[in-house]
Amino acid sequence: MAAAAAVARSIVRSGVLPLSRRPPAWGRAAQQPPGLPLAPARAFSNNKILVELDESSGFATMKFKSPPVNSLSLDFLTEFCISLEKLENNRACRGVIMTSAVPKIFSSGLDITEMCGKSAEHYAEFWRAVQEMWLLIYGCNMVTIAAVNGSSPAGGCLIALSCDYRIMVDNPKFSIGLNETQLGIVAPFWLKDTFVNVVGQRIAERSLQLGALHPAPEALKLGLVDELVPEEKLQERAVAVMAQWLALPDHARQITKSMMRKTVLDRLISHREEDIQHFISFNSKESIQKSLRMYMEMLKKKKKSG
Amino acid sequence: MAAAAAVARSIVRSGVLPLSRRPPAWGRAAQQPPGLPLAPARAFSNNKILVELDESSGFATMKFKSPPVNSLSLDFLTEFCISLEKLENNRACRGVIMTSAVPKIFSSGLDITEMCGKSAEHYAEFWRAVQEMWLLIYGCNMVTIAAVNGSSPAGGCLIALSCDYRIMVDNPKFSIGLNETQLGIVAPFWLKDTFVNVVGQRIAERSLQLGALHPAPEALKLGLVDELVPEEKLQERAVAVMAQWLALPDHARQITKSMMRKTVLDRLISHREEDIQHFISFNSKESIQKSLRMYMEMLKKKKKSG
Amino acid sequence: MAAAAAVARSIVRSGVLPLSRRPPAWGRAAQQPPGLPLAPARAFSNNKILVELDESSGFATMKFKSPPVNSLSLDFLTEFCISLEKLENNRACRGVIMTSAVPKIFSSGLDITEMCGKSAEHYAEFWRAVQEMWLLIYGCNMVTIAAVNGSSPAGGCLIALSCDYRIMVDNPKFSIGLNETQLGIVAPFWLKDTFVNVVGQRIAERSLQLGALHPAPEALKLGLVDELVPEEKLQERAVAVMAQWLALPDHARQITKSMMRKTVLDRLISHREEDIQHFISFNSKESIQKSLRMYMEMLKKKKKSG
Repeated sequence: MAAAAAVARSIVRSGVLPLSRRPPAWGRAAQQPPGLPLAPARAFSNNKILVELDESSGFATMKFKSPPVNSLSLDFLTEFCISLEKLENNRACRGVIMTSAVPKIFSSGLDITEMCGKSAEHYAEFWRAVQEMWLLIYGCNMVTIAAVNGSSPAGGCLIALSCDYRIMVDNPKFSIGLNETQLGIVAPFWLKDTFVNVVGQRIAERSLQLGALHPAPEALKLGLVDELVPEEKLQERAVAVMAQWLALPDHARQITKSMMRKTVLDRLISHREEDIQHFISFNSKESIQKSLRMYMEMLKKKKKSG
Repeated sequence: MAAAAAVARSIVRSGVLPLSRRPPAWGRAAQQPPGLPLAPARAFSNNKILVELDESSGFATMKFKSPPVNSLSLDFLTEFCISLEKLENNRACRGVIMTSAVPKIFSSGLDITEMCGKSAEHYAEFWRAVQEMWLLIYGCNMVTIAAVNGSSPAGGCLIALSCDYRIMVDNPKFSIGLNETQLGIVAPFWLKDTFVNVVGQRIAERSLQLGALHPAPEALKLGLVDELVPEEKLQERAVAVMAQWLALPDHARQITKSMMRKTVLDRLISHREEDIQHFISFNSKESIQKSLRMYMEMLKKKKKSG
Repeated sequence: MAAAAAVARSIVRSGVLPLSRRPPAWGRAAQQPPGLPLAPARAFSNNKILVELDESSGFATMKFKSPPVNSLSLDFLTEFCISLEKLENNRACRGVIMTSAVPKIFSSGLDITEMCGKSAEHYAEFWRAVQEMWLLIYGCNMVTIAAVNGSSPAGGCLIALSCDYRIMVDNPKFSIGLNETQLGIVAPFWLKDTFVNVVGQRIAERSLQLGALHPAPEALKLGLVDELVPEEKLQERAVAVMAQWLALPDHARQITKSMMRKTVLDRLISHREEDIQHFISFNSKESIQKSLRMYMEMLKKKKKSG
């Protein structure tokens, strides 16, 4: 998608994400000894995301491994965007499965500590990275499949919603949804648009207002995820679905995907700075800061008592 | 919602609805003797709508009591708008349940006598009041729940569709829908938009063209109402749902609601006068007047034979 | 619908479709001997479409009879548009049932031979005719019912999607869908819009990307068709549904239909030439020509081996 690529370039230029396209790590990888018998997959690790690329089958797996809850800190977001961009720029990679390496949680969503007691500059940088993650996933040329193996509130749900297909572990203890209102905050308009594109206006209106977290079986009924599988079958099923999607010619599939998502992508692209300013001013309100602090206290107490 | 508030103000200015914000009646209510033991709820009655506000639980009930069928006359609409505005401006009230005090009917919709053989000025005043009712409900900051305890065609369905949540009595004899085409008339674009926002484009297209009235079980299947309950459980269930919605912080919920409904609200707000002119010219056509007269005759005969 | 009518006129003017409104054939028909006892229906045949008009019940049946697979050649499209226009201009005709006279296939969609190895002028003429067919069906004032009695990929699905109501034979061997991506091509934006209007954004996004052909029972589940009936009941059921729709006053139903479809119709009407240019340049690409040739080869082999 030209839009997302342009955005990525502008970010490189603006220095937010110091990407170097086709980075040396990938170049070097091509020089690995050809005879390694049992290693068809290459892995490169950074701090928070493990990426495994299987060049023979043409897709990668991104595993979130930022315990305890894969929260979307600025570091996580930056690494996420760099990793996804690398894959997008690698011709050997046509698809990505996103999943968690942390038990019971897919991602807990935005890291509240990044939103509390920081400077406006920090909020701007953080929100730009959140936008960027969404732009890169929602506008991704590759096939994107979310293998949701744990709870997935707010920003975790954002990641899943932005993929092409969502498979969730069939466990009613795992829930997914946009629960922002419960924290006294509001999902941004582009996340709302993404949600509407998946579940429709009516379900989105009700679910967003209530800040609902839907247990897996309910999420399936609402169309928030596409299918449920037993946990031990998740990886296998994600690979099978990926194979089905990769059977299509990339070019026609990509143009079709772009056609379906362009309106919603363009809305953020043309209002990106306004959206950042809006986030800063809303988030800086004392009432919002207070409710975020209360929420963090509650989480800490939960942890201690848990 | 700023939009609806602005509209309400413009109406006040234009003198259509002589509202005085925070009217004396409410002011006086605050002075009632504090010791009245069994009266947590205050009721104020006007001609066609009974409003009961339970300040302790923070929500009101509006009961339509305009027999025989709660038709939306200009008087009904005016009282409805004034009542809802009063509640919206009362900080003690965070939600409204709308229901009927007339057996077997929620509301029969627009009062056809207001649309027959009257002047263009009258049509303009009437249609402005219809628009106003919709703007106030659809843009309401409070949580709005329709407890649909009887049939709900056309304008009755409009009221239910504009609420946040719809509970209907589980009785297949009660039906709900936008049956305008059956009378030879057409639902306005903003009612169509509201309908699409609830049931989606496809169901709306078919149902609107056929002027379909859906029995309660079918309405549930189509998503036109959210749940069915036995008649004797309706009030109890509406209160429980209200409690669930009121558990959310008002501010975040209101912004979210506004975000979901703004496009559709703005479309009428920016074309309101055109919509009135369109109504006048369409409604004044001899062919339309004729079919409305025939419909009224039919209703009269039904009444006599019934 | 004014829009579609205007388009039709512009075509007449531009000479693409040499329509003469109220053509002599129909004039003559009015002069047929009044006493013919068992012929309430009049049929006029052209090469590829059989039209039967039953003036007493007020609707016509268009039967596609272009073996082997009712592919949408330029000739077929031209005849289709002329036939539908004739019916639209005949006051005795208020509805059309579209069905196939060829066993097992409704329509196989666009005739690939029209898209391969031809001149830019030919592509322009062909694509204009494809657009025209859609504009005429989707903007049709008459009630349109698709009686889908066989498989219905791509352009066949376009015809069904553009009708008011879709009844399909309950046979899992018959499938329906927009499988363009499987051929390496992309459905035009207005067909995507039509699809979204029927099945919603999410199902459309997934189905279009995968180029999915849905067996009849799955098509019903997705809302791609409205009901399934045994093959021997199809005609009877289509007639019953037609009667239900014709019970509504034409004028109100037509305005309602136009209100529901106007946005999507207008999008093509105001970008029609761009859409043609886009088709020419995309279709003329060597990569696309190659994949269309391969597809045709595959079809030929299938035929020989079948």
